[in-house]
Amino acid sequence: MAAVKIVVDVMLKPEILDPQGQAVATALPSLGFPAPTSLRVGKHVELELEADDEAAALAQAERMAEVLLANPVIEDYRVRLA
Amino acid sequence: MAAVKIVVDVMLKPEILDPQGQAVATALPSLGFPAPTSLRVGKHVELELEADDEAAALAQAERMAEVLLANPVIEDYRVRLA
Amino acid sequence: MAAVKIVVDVMLKPEILDPQGQAVATALPSLGFPAPTSLRVGKHVELELEADDEAAALAQAERMAEVLLANPVIEDYRVRLA
Amino acid sequence: MAAVKIVVDVMLKPEILDPQGQAVATALPSLGFPAPTSLRVGKHVELELEADDEAAALAQAERMAEVLLANPVIEDYRVRLA
Repeated sequence: MAAVKIVVDVMLKPEILDPQGQAVATALPSLGFPAPTSLRVGKHVELELEADDEAAALAQAERMAEVLLANPVIEDYRVRLA
Repeated sequence: MAAVKIVVDVMLKPEILDPQGQAVATALPSLGFPAPTSLRVGKHVELELEADDEAAALAQAERMAEVLLANPVIEDYRVRLA
Repeated sequence: MAAVKIVVDVMLKPEILDPQGQAVATALPSLGFPAPTSLRVGKHVELELEADDEAAALAQAERMAEVLLANPVIEDYRVRLA
Repeated sequence: MAAVKIVVDVMLKPEILDPQGQAVATALPSLGFPAPTSLRVGKHVELELEADDEAAALAQAERMAEVLLANPVIEDYRVRLA
């Protein structure tokens, strides 16, 4: 068994409005920054799993994302090694 | 000017308890998953900036993170090219 | 003009799965609590507005919720005096 | 046993900077709204518990908030009947 560090990023699907990201994007020019072309805010999950190998850990994290970390109807997720 | 895609990940500092991550970690075994060794939840920001070059865009995103994306007292952030 | 304290609560619509709430609900029995019948997690915004009166402040907060605090496609919100 | 609906609101402590609230507050004037005097964003949890009575349900939700819903070092919470 190996300890495998994994990252799961969860974002609202591109066609779904992101009010939190919009607030940040709109606020930046008022604070002296140039306006970003786009800006969206999602979730970033860092986890460590005990698994046979990296492939097994990634497969497990993929299922965790599907079942508990994201809402697949409105969100996309990406799973990768940390 | 170039369009530069950047990612900013914001996490609670390691010494600060993360109840959302704790809830997810505790829930996973009840759903048939092995318990993760650790699991923490933060924010993931994807933005696109018009800047002279990648270095300038990264420097700008670094200041945005310091000023508006994170609370440096309780959170750490990492800025990188997407 | 009066300073009016207002609360805006933003929840995912009932028909949309809430993975964060599900994680908390699933974790509670593992921590010795009875399982809740239901549990959902949303956003709670506390703001103070200068307005002519409470009705004007509430009307303004209602529009802020529609435009920036919530995503009306996937979220419901409620505006009230604090 | 009775089904009791409870609300738990979780906010960063007043002395802790809230970047998400700051982004929203700063964005509002750019969208044609007056600037709020203050604006902070927290979590809003709606749950339903089976308990002997309302007092028992409230006591239980109070402990859930302490243990899993909030981080008492950086957040305050309020528990009330829905």
